[in-house]
Amino acid sequence: MRNPVLVEVRRGAQVESRHSGAVAVVDADGRTVFSLGDIETPVYPRSAVKALQALVVVESGAADRFKFGDEELALACASHGGEPAHVEGVSRMLERAGLTRSALACGTHWPIHQPSAQALARNGGEANALHNNCSGKHAGFVCAACALGVDHRGYVEPAHVVQREVKARLEQLTGAPISDDRSATDGCSVPTWAIPLRELALAFARFASGQGLLPEQSEAARRLMAACAAKPWFVAGSGRFCTGVMEHFRERVFVKTGAEGVFCGALPSVGLGIAVKCDDGGTRAAEVAMAAMIARFLPLDGRDQLALDRYLRPTLRNWNGLTVGAIVPTSELASP
Amino acid sequence: MRNPVLVEVRRGAQVESRHSGAVAVVDADGRTVFSLGDIETPVYPRSAVKALQALVVVESGAADRFKFGDEELALACASHGGEPAHVEGVSRMLERAGLTRSALACGTHWPIHQPSAQALARNGGEANALHNNCSGKHAGFVCAACALGVDHRGYVEPAHVVQREVKARLEQLTGAPISDDRSATDGCSVPTWAIPLRELALAFARFASGQGLLPEQSEAARRLMAACAAKPWFVAGSGRFCTGVMEHFRERVFVKTGAEGVFCGALPSVGLGIAVKCDDGGTRAAEVAMAAMIARFLPLDGRDQLALDRYLRPTLRNWNGLTVGAIVPTSELASP
Repeated sequence: MRNPVLVEVRRGAQVESRHSGAVAVVDADGRTVFSLGDIETPVYPRSAVKALQALVVVESGAADRFKFGDEELALACASHGGEPAHVEGVSRMLERAGLTRSALACGTHWPIHQPSAQALARNGGEANALHNNCSGKHAGFVCAACALGVDHRGYVEPAHVVQREVKARLEQLTGAPISDDRSATDGCSVPTWAIPLRELALAFARFASGQGLLPEQSEAARRLMAACAAKPWFVAGSGRFCTGVMEHFRERVFVKTGAEGVFCGALPSVGLGIAVKCDDGGTRAAEVAMAAMIARFLPLDGRDQLALDRYLRPTLRNWNGLTVGAIVPTSELASP
Repeated sequence: MRNPVLVEVRRGAQVESRHSGAVAVVDADGRTVFSLGDIETPVYPRSAVKALQALVVVESGAADRFKFGDEELALACASHGGEPAHVEGVSRMLERAGLTRSALACGTHWPIHQPSAQALARNGGEANALHNNCSGKHAGFVCAACALGVDHRGYVEPAHVVQREVKARLEQLTGAPISDDRSATDGCSVPTWAIPLRELALAFARFASGQGLLPEQSEAARRLMAACAAKPWFVAGSGRFCTGVMEHFRERVFVKTGAEGVFCGALPSVGLGIAVKCDDGGTRAAEVAMAAMIARFLPLDGRDQLALDRYLRPTLRNWNGLTVGAIVPTSELASP
C-alpha cells in the first residue's frame, strides 16, 4: 500500500512533480484525529525532534546553571542558518560552560543562509563547527553533560549518558520503548531513533500540553516552547519556514523541520501534535503538508490565512523573478 | 496507476526515503527496448535537452562563423557550475559575436560550484548572468540569432525565430508535433516543451545515431556529441555526475541532467536513447536511475563497473565523513 500524493508542483498548465507521504495528527490522549498514509512504520525524525532532545538541556540543570535565556534555548532546538547572531549565540552557550567550539562534534559546513556564507567568504573567513546548523543542539548536549557532572567528550555516542537520557525522554513522550536496532547516525553524528509518525505526533501533543509528563518535565517543555515562540529567528533564520510561521503564530504554533522530509509540530491551543514524512525526503513538500495541517486544525482569521498562504501554496519564480508555477497541497491534504 | 519505486535511500538498517519514477530506453527505429512506469504522459525535459536545443547553434552557422571549438559547443549543451573556466568560455562565445553578458536573458545566480562561489565572494565579486548554469546555452542562442541575421533581443520568447527553430527540431527528433499548450517557462526563461519519455528517448537515439536526420543535421549532432565527449568538464563541472560519467566513458555515453529529476542520454555504441523522470523531481534518484540504465545496456568491463559504481550506489557520508547510508537502485531498475 503506497502513501498518497500530498503535494503537487505545477509548472505552466501541468503538474511537473509529485510528492507522496504520510501525516499524523494526534491529541495528548493518543487519539488519532487525522491521518493520511502509513503512520505506523518507524521513520527517522532527524532534526524534527530537536525540541524533545533539548529537554535534557533544561532537566539536567544546564539551562539554569549557564543562565540560558530564550535565545540560547531556541538555539538548542534549532536547525539554524549559520547567520552571525546564530553563531554568536552558540559560542556564548559554550563560553558559559568554559568551553569553545572545539567541544562540538557536529562537523563543519558553510552557513545554510547564503548571504551569510558569502559574507563569511568576503571577509576571508572559513566555516567552522559553529556554522553547522546543528551547533546549538550540540552546545546544549555539551552543557547538559557538564551539568550532569559527566565528561562531555563522546557525547554523540549512543552509550553516552546524554544520548541515553535523550532516548529515555523519547520513549516516555511516545509512550513506547525504542529498540536499539532502530538507531542510525544523523548528519551531525548523534543517534536518530526511528519512531512511527503516530507516536511522534503524540509526543508533540504531550510536549505542548504537559499531559503525561512529570511536573518538572512539563515545566521544561513549557520553557522550551516559550523560548521558540519568543525567538523564532533562532530556531531557523531569515527566510525560513519555521521562523516565518512561528513569527506569525507565536505560542499558537510550534513547528520544526528535519532532514529527509520530516516535519513535527504542535498546536497547543487545540491540543494537537503533528508529524509529517514526505516519502522522497523533499522539504518543500513537508513544509506545504505542515502548513496544510495548520490551516486545517487551527482556527484562523483573515490575517492568519494571509500569513499562511505563502507557505501553503508557495509561488515558484525563476531566476528572472517570473512566476513559472506553484507548489500546492492535493485536495486530500487540504480539504476541511 | 502509480510509477514504481526506482531508488531507495538507506540509513542505518532501514530505508529512509523512496523515489518513484519512470524510465524509457528506445532505439532509433522507435522500438521501446525497456521501460518502467508511465512513459507516455508528457514531462518537461528542462535542461536535459540542451544538446538538442544546441543543434540550432551549429545548424544556424553560428558555430562555424564564431569559430566554436569543443569547449564552446560543450558549454552550449551545459548546465555548468559557474567555475572560472566556464564563465570565461561563455564570455568568449559572446565576444566572438561582438556582444557582452548584457545580451544574456537567463537571469543571475551564484555559481552552483560552492568553492567557486566562495572564491568569488572572497575576491569581492558579485554573481552575474555568466555564472547562471544556463549561460552557455543562452550564449549559443544569442549567437544563433546573430548567424541567422535576426535581432537576438527577445530570444527567450516562444515566438522568436530561435525558439521556433528549437521547437521544430524537437518535433523532428521526437517524430511528433508539440502543441503550444505544452509549453511552460524554464528557470532561465526559455520555453520548455512537455514531451513523453518514450519520445525523448527516441530523440536521443536518433541524435546519437543520426538516423532520421538530414545529413547536415546528423553532422551537427555528431559534432555536439563529440564536443561533450572531448570536454565533459564544460557540460557540468567539478564533482558532477554528467562530467564524471562522460570523463570515464567518453564517446560511449552521453548524459545530461535537467531540473526536477529529468535525465536524458544516449549509448551510441548500442544505438539506444534513454529518458528518466523522477516523480518528485529528485536529482539524486534520476542520477542513480541513469547509472542503472548504463549498467544494464552498455557492455562493461571491470574498470567500467568500478567507475560506474559510485554513481549507481552512492555512499552517504555525514558532516564528519562517517558513512551513514547509501542511495541504491531497486531490483526492478537494476536487475539484468
